[in-house]
Amino acid sequence: MTPLADDVLAGRPRAIARAISLVENAGTALRDLIAVIGTRQPYRARVVGLTGSPGVGKSTSTGTLIEAARKRGEKVGVLAVDPSSPFTGGALLGDRVRMQEHATDSGVFIRSMATRGHLGGLSWAVPQAIRVLDAAGFDLILVETVGVGQAEVDIASLADSTIVLLAPGMGDGVQAAKAGILEIADVFVVNKADREGAQATIRELRNMVALSGAPWRPPIVSTVAVRGEGVDDVVAALDAHAEYLEKSGQGRVRKLARARDEIEAIVLAALRARIGGPIHGDRRLDVLAERALAGKIDPYSAADELIASL
Amino acid sequence: MTPLADDVLAGRPRAIARAISLVENAGTALRDLIAVIGTRQPYRARVVGLTGSPGVGKSTSTGTLIEAARKRGEKVGVLAVDPSSPFTGGALLGDRVRMQEHATDSGVFIRSMATRGHLGGLSWAVPQAIRVLDAAGFDLILVETVGVGQAEVDIASLADSTIVLLAPGMGDGVQAAKAGILEIADVFVVNKADREGAQATIRELRNMVALSGAPWRPPIVSTVAVRGEGVDDVVAALDAHAEYLEKSGQGRVRKLARARDEIEAIVLAALRARIGGPIHGDRRLDVLAERALAGKIDPYSAADELIASL
Repeated sequence: MTPLADDVLAGRPRAIARAISLVENAGTALRDLIAVIGTRQPYRARVVGLTGSPGVGKSTSTGTLIEAARKRGEKVGVLAVDPSSPFTGGALLGDRVRMQEHATDSGVFIRSMATRGHLGGLSWAVPQAIRVLDAAGFDLILVETVGVGQAEVDIASLADSTIVLLAPGMGDGVQAAKAGILEIADVFVVNKADREGAQATIRELRNMVALSGAPWRPPIVSTVAVRGEGVDDVVAALDAHAEYLEKSGQGRVRKLARARDEIEAIVLAALRARIGGPIHGDRRLDVLAERALAGKIDPYSAADELIASL
Repeated sequence: MTPLADDVLAGRPRAIARAISLVENAGTALRDLIAVIGTRQPYRARVVGLTGSPGVGKSTSTGTLIEAARKRGEKVGVLAVDPSSPFTGGALLGDRVRMQEHATDSGVFIRSMATRGHLGGLSWAVPQAIRVLDAAGFDLILVETVGVGQAEVDIASLADSTIVLLAPGMGDGVQAAKAGILEIADVFVVNKADREGAQATIRELRNMVALSGAPWRPPIVSTVAVRGEGVDDVVAALDAHAEYLEKSGQGRVRKLARARDEIEAIVLAALRARIGGPIHGDRRLDVLAERALAGKIDPYSAADELIASL
């Protein structure tokens, strides 16, 4: 066993931090690490995704969930994922600072992750970071991300339970955003529930949920995260969802899909590296792109040539 | 030549609509179509991306840009891309309706596209839809998308020029979103510039742009799109950027990168289909995922097995 794997499995914070840096840098040392920890009771931790538009109060809500879990004696790992920044900790630095009140608690590990530069983005890096935290013995892993578009979908696919956070008065953007969220939300949280328009938002969500024929109907919880109000209800909703996952067998289905996605992402990253790399002494893809740009080959025929040369 | 390719090249709206549906459905008919149109003066049209958070006024701004281009006698194709919805036209239906004033103008083609269900998402489907519009003879192709996360980055990588739209008073979300946007913006537009806070937003952007050492410094333009104010300035900024692209050679660099990405996306989608498909009579990936879930194999070793079996 590598010493780093040893230290990760022992839950040592500096080793965990180094391991997640390995995930971000994607080298052979990462492979060696995952090869060891990948077969030690994987998929044990409960993974909760938390997503929502900018300004709905994601970091504050994450903070309250950390506190609630600590009261239950659970160790909590937090990944604050920024799908738009290629720089670790860039856009989320402020959020991270806000969560620093937990920095001295050894049962809490918080890390910002930038996934933009990655091969395969979020779907490549985050599952492996989750593996690291899982191996390090965290009971609950919170994955927080800005929720618009593909990032939101990706987070939902790698979490056991996904919280979609909304706030009243976010403009018609919330309306627009709603089309896709019913599918990914296991729990809806309307934060800033003391503000005007909260009841209208809750009503709209209720109507949406009522129309859904899915076996799990996402509960709608109101919170005022800055004052800690409603957090117990969020925890209760998450517990109810965990019970549903267990009883229905959906928990295993989700974890299996996660394992599948993780392997697929590694395969695609490896193949993509091979495509972009020098093949037969030249950069085949660059040559084909030049020909496509000149209209000398169509992109499908170019793709065929490339696949044939792999 | 297929009759559909013929009709697309003749710019017939119903054929264009059918061709984009083929892109969304990703079958062999699409391949046949692209094989024909892919070698007919590709990359001729000017592609302008327009991105911004929900509520900043993307559709209204798109509307004003359509009008401005029509005044110059240009044919305009619009792709309203919704990266969060698996349903065509779902979340963007309202926006599309707002743009319907151009519906009777044969020089304007507007289409909503959902990319979420796609293999490779946005980076797979949108370049091919752009190809269709390009072949159909549109001079300007506007690609509008909700701008947070990877979708924003993807749009920027496939456009010649990218407009990042902001509005004052969007909460600290705008602040948070700013970290990544400097890299992708070729033109900043502060819409709703008659609102409180507009000057502060412009000032912040100026400071950001001043710190950038890049050869092209994105101009910052104020607009009130609902009243058509400032649109000429946006057009002028886009023209200045087009001139920069031409003179610096960056225009060709961008188009080449686009061709490269397009081929790569097709290759990856093909390989991904093969990975998920039945190999040696079983679904190899599913079997490996079961073993990974049970901790019997690590994901890298699983990926190796899969690649070896391709």
